[in-house]
Amino acid sequence: MVLSAVSTKDRNKALLAMADSLLKNLRYILLCNARDVSRAKKKGTSGPFIDRLSLTNERIKGMVESLRSVAALKDPVGEIIKEWKRPNGLLIKKVRVPIGVIGIIYEARPNVTSDCAGLCLKSGNACVLRGGSDSISSNLAIHEVITKDLERFGIPKAAVSIIDVKERRAVDFLLSAPEFVDLIIPRGGEGLIRHVAGISRIPVIKHYKGVCHLYIDKYADLKKALSITLNAKVQRPGVCNAIETLLVHKDIAKAFLPKAAHALKEAKVELRGCPKTRQILKGIKGAVEKDWYAEYLALILAVKVVDDVQEAIRFINRYGSSHSDAIITKNKKIADEFLKGVDSACVYLNASTRFTDGYQFGLGAEIGISTDKIHARGPMALEEITSYKYLVLGSGQIRT
Amino acid sequence: MVLSAVSTKDRNKALLAMADSLLKNLRYILLCNARDVSRAKKKGTSGPFIDRLSLTNERIKGMVESLRSVAALKDPVGEIIKEWKRPNGLLIKKVRVPIGVIGIIYEARPNVTSDCAGLCLKSGNACVLRGGSDSISSNLAIHEVITKDLERFGIPKAAVSIIDVKERRAVDFLLSAPEFVDLIIPRGGEGLIRHVAGISRIPVIKHYKGVCHLYIDKYADLKKALSITLNAKVQRPGVCNAIETLLVHKDIAKAFLPKAAHALKEAKVELRGCPKTRQILKGIKGAVEKDWYAEYLALILAVKVVDDVQEAIRFINRYGSSHSDAIITKNKKIADEFLKGVDSACVYLNASTRFTDGYQFGLGAEIGISTDKIHARGPMALEEITSYKYLVLGSGQIRT
Repeated sequence: MVLSAVSTKDRNKALLAMADSLLKNLRYILLCNARDVSRAKKKGTSGPFIDRLSLTNERIKGMVESLRSVAALKDPVGEIIKEWKRPNGLLIKKVRVPIGVIGIIYEARPNVTSDCAGLCLKSGNACVLRGGSDSISSNLAIHEVITKDLERFGIPKAAVSIIDVKERRAVDFLLSAPEFVDLIIPRGGEGLIRHVAGISRIPVIKHYKGVCHLYIDKYADLKKALSITLNAKVQRPGVCNAIETLLVHKDIAKAFLPKAAHALKEAKVELRGCPKTRQILKGIKGAVEKDWYAEYLALILAVKVVDDVQEAIRFINRYGSSHSDAIITKNKKIADEFLKGVDSACVYLNASTRFTDGYQFGLGAEIGISTDKIHARGPMALEEITSYKYLVLGSGQIRT
Repeated sequence: MVLSAVSTKDRNKALLAMADSLLKNLRYILLCNARDVSRAKKKGTSGPFIDRLSLTNERIKGMVESLRSVAALKDPVGEIIKEWKRPNGLLIKKVRVPIGVIGIIYEARPNVTSDCAGLCLKSGNACVLRGGSDSISSNLAIHEVITKDLERFGIPKAAVSIIDVKERRAVDFLLSAPEFVDLIIPRGGEGLIRHVAGISRIPVIKHYKGVCHLYIDKYADLKKALSITLNAKVQRPGVCNAIETLLVHKDIAKAFLPKAAHALKEAKVELRGCPKTRQILKGIKGAVEKDWYAEYLALILAVKVVDDVQEAIRFINRYGSSHSDAIITKNKKIADEFLKGVDSACVYLNASTRFTDGYQFGLGAEIGISTDKIHARGPMALEEITSYKYLVLGSGQIRT
């Protein structure tokens, strides 16, 4: 409640001051980060892990830019979502308000510290940050730097809190305190998120994984189908909105699959096919049941030939993760069937699933992606970390 | 997903058929209800409990009416909440969809069985109903009667399910199955709701209790203040939106309190005052700390004199239950301070808190009231038991 009393102007000024302070203390942050990196290397941690943990001039400047762009976004707090008058004269206004305190639990990616602090502050929420213990020196340094000037703008330092102990118990304690924290957003791999969701006494908004599908319908424009297949699989295979499974209508499989296989092979993608696929693409590996559930996050693609759009829908609803799924077709009726029938956060027609992203959606930010159906679904930005309250304005009305 | 494929028309026809079937089987339901009531009486259950458990011709007709009015409401499913075009030509539509499966856990009030089944069906959600074990014969009879004709409209019977065993373990099992149920709405007393929220692995939307406040400001219209005080306390003291605490500005206390006390005494309301109140209203009982937290649900009112609106706001945010709180004032600045500062689902200006209700708000229904800030807050009707998905319509867009 303290934060929502701070004016939009002061919250924006604080965000810009946070950005400036990051820039001014760039060397200090790099120094602390180097400690984390060297500890992680000594432990023999993997290359991609070290890469995500490492900060550079460039990356810190990215964090600075992110805070500045958040400052420039419209303030969601105070927006009148809806208002209406009752026959008895009562005026009811549904007004957007902050949620309260948001707990962010993330892996060893130091940039999340300032990104999430900025989004919470902008939306009038206090936050409790808890990053992976391997990045603790970096996170504490970033936290120290960005909270330095908060009080100048009437914002208590506690509005951006960080858990500064390494023990995992600290997370468990945080998750057992619904009286202090209103919402938990976990960011990271499936293991982290399942751990958090499994023990939290506080509402959690999350997605476990992105097992995204692309269905090439009988009435697809094959040129578009090919370019979208490549884009959705290859452009950045390690992210949740890349496709893991390609479904192809049986009537178009012979025309499409060899071309697609050729292009995918050039892009170093390994294919794993169903029996019908393997009749067309001789020599590729067979897909087993496990493949249909797999989030490869790598240059691997499972391929299945289906009878029609209904089989595609059933398959996606069964094996998918309700994240992002696409159909390529020129047939409006089939498109509508797919758009209605697929029970996912984002359902695409003739476009790449790679657009599931707060910035690509034009939300100006992204604090996470939800495959849940409670509160928020799909890319989450500022509005998604707000609540509302009703203001009821009368002139003496009583209930009879 | 099965239910959302059923057309609006067929869902409405099914609701009307449910209503007709209730009416046709009125005697059967009364018979089953009589068994519940006689069992409860033998156990020596309290009068108000028996009253809530008992069905009459009148009450069943109320349930029939409720189903018919829900059939007449606008279908929330499929509504385009928002749509916008991106610079790359992608058209993004945010479309309202059902949540999926909603578990309703309630006390021995048989009418909730058909009321909630109707609201879930209308909004395309399947439901799992679990009423208090003392009303099991009534609930099973109502369930049998309302699901009889569902299949005629393409709706599987399982879309309206009921847990037909008496053991409490059944609830615990339901609450531990997030893979089958998407949302839990508990309806009943604080004990039931705390039990549910304490063990659920599924998101719960709830309010524990209604400790509502009325603050009479220094600039109040005293006539309105008096009529709203009486209405908010006396019109129906046993409900969650009745007030439990009256706050009065110190400068107006001497003018207002004696009048209010007189009228409240006539209405048989017992007052419990803070020391300053007791200087004005000699002889009333003193309020202790516990009183400020109390949800009396009875003709008892705690009274406190406060220094100003800021003290009133702090007091409400500390002792209230974030449900419904009101200010009576003619001063716009003070009104705005209160409306902004009180962190409750519904904040009133110059009106009775008794309006916190789906019907009074004009929502046409009410499946519960939430004091949470995730997903839904305040009175919940059809929209509040929906989610959304994004449809992203392209013409070959890929991400670069």
